Amino acid sequence: MILEAAASVFDEFGFDRATIAEILTRAGVTKGALYFHFPSKEDLALAVLHEQVLDIAVRPQAIKLQEFVDAGQILAYRLRHDAIQRGAARLAIEQSSNHLDRKQSMSAWSSFVEGLLKEAKARGEVMGSVNVRDTAELFVGAFAGLQMMSKAFTDQTDLSQRLTVFFEHTLPTIAVPAILAKLRVDPERGAQLDAELQRHAALEDEEHLAEDGPNLLDVAP
Amino acid sequence: MILEAAASVFDEFGFDRATIAEILTRAGVTKGALYFHFPSKEDLALAVLHEQVLDIAVRPQAIKLQEFVDAGQILAYRLRHDAIQRGAARLAIEQSSNHLDRKQSMSAWSSFVEGLLKEAKARGEVMGSVNVRDTAELFVGAFAGLQMMSKAFTDQTDLSQRLTVFFEHTLPTIAVPAILAKLRVDPERGAQLDAELQRHAALEDEEHLAEDGPNLLDVAP
Repeated sequence: MILEAAASVFDEFGFDRATIAEILTRAGVTKGALYFHFPSKEDLALAVLHEQVLDIAVRPQAIKLQEFVDAGQILAYRLRHDAIQRGAARLAIEQSSNHLDRKQSMSAWSSFVEGLLKEAKARGEVMGSVNVRDTAELFVGAFAGLQMMSKAFTDQTDLSQRLTVFFEHTLPTIAVPAILAKLRVDPERGAQLDAELQRHAALEDEEHLAEDGPNLLDVAP
Repeated sequence: MILEAAASVFDEFGFDRATIAEILTRAGVTKGALYFHFPSKEDLALAVLHEQVLDIAVRPQAIKLQEFVDAGQILAYRLRHDAIQRGAARLAIEQSSNHLDRKQSMSAWSSFVEGLLKEAKARGEVMGSVNVRDTAELFVGAFAGLQMMSKAFTDQTDLSQRLTVFFEHTLPTIAVPAILAKLRVDPERGAQLDAELQRHAALEDEEHLAEDGPNLLDVAP
């Protein structure tokens, strides 16, 4: 709750102009509770960046390289609809917050994508000439810039479309032809994948509830 | 002189923390002189962004698509070595300066690149399937993000290399095969092109001097 409030304040005002007072108002917690968990504004910002990294998730696909595309399209979707992602994106872009370790999220993203590409390459989906580290960093860097551009021109409305253009231009030099023909890069994919992930998470919650809480359910009418 | 001073201050402190006092010190001009030309800090920032756009220059090449690559590699080089470019880049990236029209430089760059690609396509260098506007905007957006990433990790030292990776991954989906084989995308190209442009500019200055100022040269010892 605190992190979502902090992220929304960072998204709106940026790090420098964000105030603890505004975060307290939005979170609806006391000053003491906030300072107990996060002694400074910088701690809050780092926690938001960290939470964003934890938030990377893709559903397993038959083609590993599809998960690379999916990770991008889900993030593009969530950057429009998720407070943590929006706040973290602004923190990561702001150069004025030099003291913050904004390299953290870029590094984490690069490593995550590199891992996906490495596995795809081991399966024979990626061409031998591809340097997976370089390609992963190209993706992360290009994504950050496309996000910034999309924010400036359409408040991120066209980010999924811009990402599709990126994939259409780069996948032919990444995927072997047989795989390339099967990849789905359409801009609507992010919304579908996010819905699937949420259904999946809801199902898991129900299962846990069923396992752990039969007594709880018994008291229901 | 004023713009170079302003750009260096924007580069170092960002728009919000840049002060007129620091710009005055670096420019070595009086407050009156500065306010005469630029009534506000915002005017200075817009002038820096405008100057950067004017500064786009590539030497004509036999292959038009080479000029697209060259424009990127020269900019990557100048972002490390030119005060105006560094200051403008920081202003363009900062989200906290929402009131500044940072779309200006992205739009100007997109149109410039779109023009190059359009001409290249008319000459048969670009594949028919390419939407030149989309590709131009992909380049500008990706460039901005790669620049940000390079700044964060290596203070822009590896920007030319990152740009080479971008071109290696995208040109095969832009250029027709016969042209693709001839394009030079190596990261050293920016420095060479910048030196050529400067030699060319110096030669033009000499010619103008020879035409306009024979009397001036006569008084030289």
